[in-house]
Amino acid sequence: MPQLVLLRHGQSAWNLENRFTGWWDVGLTDRGVEEARAAGFALAAAGYDFDTCFTSVQSRAIKTLHLVLEAMDRLWLPVAKHWRLNERHYGGLTGLNKNETAARHGEAQVRIWRRSFAVPPPPMEAGSPFDVSSDRRYAGVAVPRAESLEDTIARVLPFWEAAIAPALRSGQRVLVVAHGNSLRGLVKHLSGLSDEEILAFEIPTGTPIIYDLAADLSPRARAFLPVG
Amino acid sequence: MPQLVLLRHGQSAWNLENRFTGWWDVGLTDRGVEEARAAGFALAAAGYDFDTCFTSVQSRAIKTLHLVLEAMDRLWLPVAKHWRLNERHYGGLTGLNKNETAARHGEAQVRIWRRSFAVPPPPMEAGSPFDVSSDRRYAGVAVPRAESLEDTIARVLPFWEAAIAPALRSGQRVLVVAHGNSLRGLVKHLSGLSDEEILAFEIPTGTPIIYDLAADLSPRARAFLPVG
Repeated sequence: MPQLVLLRHGQSAWNLENRFTGWWDVGLTDRGVEEARAAGFALAAAGYDFDTCFTSVQSRAIKTLHLVLEAMDRLWLPVAKHWRLNERHYGGLTGLNKNETAARHGEAQVRIWRRSFAVPPPPMEAGSPFDVSSDRRYAGVAVPRAESLEDTIARVLPFWEAAIAPALRSGQRVLVVAHGNSLRGLVKHLSGLSDEEILAFEIPTGTPIIYDLAADLSPRARAFLPVG
Repeated sequence: MPQLVLLRHGQSAWNLENRFTGWWDVGLTDRGVEEARAAGFALAAAGYDFDTCFTSVQSRAIKTLHLVLEAMDRLWLPVAKHWRLNERHYGGLTGLNKNETAARHGEAQVRIWRRSFAVPPPPMEAGSPFDVSSDRRYAGVAVPRAESLEDTIARVLPFWEAAIAPALRSGQRVLVVAHGNSLRGLVKHLSGLSDEEILAFEIPTGTPIIYDLAADLSPRARAFLPVG
């Protein structure tokens, strides 16, 4: 039966500071490094193993994957990196912490954004220090100026269809290390959650989501793996 | 002009103990980790950058590559791993240190092996604790029982022709992180060294070899990059 494990990266520097990160490339905290290692040890101890891995082009996810594979003695597994697994692009909110966001946009507006599936945040302003659109890793990519959760899911799913689902159908055991919102896209798609349900579905850092799938990739079971 | 950088992994646990390692999968020492990071910082400081990376399926090379990419802020670069870039397989010498080898086989025989391009060491014995032929990463691979330097080079070059040379010809800047003897294969091929010359060509751990290549991949210059 196809086996899929989804993992959100370990705690990042901006998770800790409660800043909107999005496509900005921040590193893991020491705690994030430990979370990643613990996830790898927990997966190995529970008997999980993989044939291929997918991650985003963001350092916090890639480094988490490397730490997981090292803990599992599986550094040699193939890894494909793709921008479609990146975090949601938070547009003009990128870099702001909770207080700054409320001060600039008002609590009411922040609540609308937080509770909305389809409303994007304000677009990233020209000249923002957090604009990654000219980063070489995005050459040829139409980097969004901002994304709703709906937008994020819409650009994640083509990669699911093109790369991840075919690997699962061919019998490979797959590990995907990505971000809160790109993983929400996969969970919504696989588990058939409503827009409201996926907004409420919180994915903790460093906690593997185990999917047992039927041959047609419909989910037979979904569970968080206890870590540490 | 095509640009190729070759890097031998940082010091491994068995480099330190002076044991024949070959295909046995040992980790880096703390010094090896520092060598890898220093190589990455030195490459970035000297203005080098890459489009794609190749490494073996052995942890000491893969981890070195990861540390180099992290130091260069290039974790997002594509990485292909292949067993043809593995270290020379030392057969029955695997796991032995210098003294044990001399005690078991005699100084004269050791000298023959060390100075020989085409003579392989004794084959790995059945039941050796260092036999990796049933390791899952080598499924479908005819794992050698022992390799001469000539054997090693003969299995490295098909990967050069199939993957590395095409990347260079397509204009990509390429980083290869591998092992003393698989890299000797690439240097012998590129620089046209004789069997005797390549035997005498020592590649230190963690020290990038910079190749400036002509469009036909003939070398215009080859130099070690000073590190640290």
